[in-house]
Amino acid sequence: MLYPPDRLYPPDRLYPPDRLDRTREAVAAAGLDALLLTPGSDLRYLTGYHAHALERLTCLVLPARGEATLIVPRLERPAAEASPAPGTGVTIVDHADGDDPYPLVRKALGGPARAVGLADRMWAAQVLALRDALPEARQRLAGEVLAPLRARKTPAEVAALREAGAAIDAVHAGMGRWLRAGRTEAEVGADIARAIRDAGHETVGFVIVASGPNGASPHHATSDRVIAAGDPVVVDIGGTMPSGYCSDSTRTYVVGTPPPDFAAYYEVLRAAQRAAVAAVRPGVTASSVDAAARSPIAGAGYGEAFLHRTGHGIGLDGHEEPYIVAGNALPLEPGMAFSVEPGIYLAGRHGARIEDIVVCVDGGVERLNTLSTELVEL
Amino acid sequence: MLYPPDRLYPPDRLYPPDRLDRTREAVAAAGLDALLLTPGSDLRYLTGYHAHALERLTCLVLPARGEATLIVPRLERPAAEASPAPGTGVTIVDHADGDDPYPLVRKALGGPARAVGLADRMWAAQVLALRDALPEARQRLAGEVLAPLRARKTPAEVAALREAGAAIDAVHAGMGRWLRAGRTEAEVGADIARAIRDAGHETVGFVIVASGPNGASPHHATSDRVIAAGDPVVVDIGGTMPSGYCSDSTRTYVVGTPPPDFAAYYEVLRAAQRAAVAAVRPGVTASSVDAAARSPIAGAGYGEAFLHRTGHGIGLDGHEEPYIVAGNALPLEPGMAFSVEPGIYLAGRHGARIEDIVVCVDGGVERLNTLSTELVEL
Repeated sequence: MLYPPDRLYPPDRLYPPDRLDRTREAVAAAGLDALLLTPGSDLRYLTGYHAHALERLTCLVLPARGEATLIVPRLERPAAEASPAPGTGVTIVDHADGDDPYPLVRKALGGPARAVGLADRMWAAQVLALRDALPEARQRLAGEVLAPLRARKTPAEVAALREAGAAIDAVHAGMGRWLRAGRTEAEVGADIARAIRDAGHETVGFVIVASGPNGASPHHATSDRVIAAGDPVVVDIGGTMPSGYCSDSTRTYVVGTPPPDFAAYYEVLRAAQRAAVAAVRPGVTASSVDAAARSPIAGAGYGEAFLHRTGHGIGLDGHEEPYIVAGNALPLEPGMAFSVEPGIYLAGRHGARIEDIVVCVDGGVERLNTLSTELVEL
Repeated sequence: MLYPPDRLYPPDRLYPPDRLDRTREAVAAAGLDALLLTPGSDLRYLTGYHAHALERLTCLVLPARGEATLIVPRLERPAAEASPAPGTGVTIVDHADGDDPYPLVRKALGGPARAVGLADRMWAAQVLALRDALPEARQRLAGEVLAPLRARKTPAEVAALREAGAAIDAVHAGMGRWLRAGRTEAEVGADIARAIRDAGHETVGFVIVASGPNGASPHHATSDRVIAAGDPVVVDIGGTMPSGYCSDSTRTYVVGTPPPDFAAYYEVLRAAQRAAVAAVRPGVTASSVDAAARSPIAGAGYGEAFLHRTGHGIGLDGHEEPYIVAGNALPLEPGMAFSVEPGIYLAGRHGARIEDIVVCVDGGVERLNTLSTELVEL
């Protein structure tokens, strides 16, 4: 742990007592009768309850008008009671193994529902069980209501993301200890995974160590390829902190001296990433941040080689709204946190990506990953 | 890695070439026109492709009659092509960021569909998008078809589970190094998580270190409670191996000398667990294995304290069919692998659980966790 987390984001600040009421208002305004939230970030955001995703039904029923009920398997009851959930005003009810829990959902709704919002990542098994248990209710997505709320982080959430950013920066800062010629990507990746935990993460989200030609595949993980002198290596890593908030940062390293053509486009990429970060401020659209990254890369002749969007929101999920992509006219607001991660990928040769998490603040932008983006030769 | 995995389960044995054809037959027999499988174990089981679960659509379309198509985001295409998927006979098509991928699903179906089977853990966001893209298709669960197939493990899958079992046994065997009076559950848990990786797991699934009264909560994780002399400690741990197959094993330890009442019921529990394992053989029902665990515990007066089912299947998912629970009349078959994990929980005081993964084989049972279940005093 880098900081004492209870100083940074005590439960009553991370899960403020008015959050359920504000959500109820948004539920009603969206024409929904209730949200139905199974384990995942939507549930954690509203109640602080970090539940196992299991075949046994756990479901928060949040009516637009009326009391919130958290339905849990009996053997999860102690965990639910020990979570911040009771302090947010929800009533906990349980069901035993072998009992049908869906009548409890109907009861918690308190009356007929014409439209319900399901957690965006609810499992299909539960979506279809709820369809059959509540045949009169049109199923929509809770994200319609919750994604805009979750996208605007509170100061306590930004503090949690800042802590996550510092933790993953500490891992990147130690890269010279692990990333060397003669080792496989998988060996380096195992060391990085250990370091991600040691830096204070509760879980390792992903470890990409993409050397040489593997760097041209944006979502390559690791492999048995032996890293060679002169290889550019894309290292994209992240995890989840005990707070529940995620880290995600990419740096591209070179083991020894880079190939000449690589050094040239790396500087193009670096300028593009910097320009996109600098473009972030309240009122600017998500698509214009994407364009700020894309236009210098296209101008240098690498437009086709930047084959993904510029970024994604981050919070309790590693990928969430807002998405920084062409066509997204969403105006940025203070508290929105997202990645800025342009890349250039030359198939069969090598690639590079630079990624910082940033947060839109009054008057501009704050980087939550603060390491230099200069090319690091190890 | 404990064994060279390519010797144990080469891709053509873990993902046999006839699996898609056998699945197509089952799809047709179930009255489904196709399966639609987003990232997760169902997709991995059929194609060997271990895909990121992302907001971008990845979906295998497997018609009952016709070619299988794997729809992937463009930036995942190299990963999909590098996976065993192409060798299983699927055609890969991709879509770019910002394009609507759902018309690709319709095209891959090759004609109108009246009923489709969705991956049981498909996200609601995709379930509802498919509902809207294919309004004529009744949505059912792919699990109707895949769960019975996945429940009967092939010899290569049993080899992968045996490797996972040996890996988690190695962690339990080292418990004396970490579990000591004066340390917190969280400190012990962090060491165990590291050991789970060091034993060859790719990811840590869960770490339960439930000491003293926390042992009475079956799904307690870890806490800042300091372990004291005389505490019983339930340690339930597991992870996922590079093969994709999961481990899961529980032992209950005592730090020093156990409380007298604990030692008494631990022996009841141990006999019950042994009886349930011994009850496993082809043709016996899942519920009768549950009964074999439950009846000695109830006979000793602890029936109410055994507050969950006896076990769950395990494979590419940590929990899958068959469930070893009262009311499940499923007859066991060779190749079915599942946990046998009775527990006794005395609220406010302490608890105990013993869990082995076993596989039903011709003529009986094989334990995949082979450590003694005698009470270990550390």
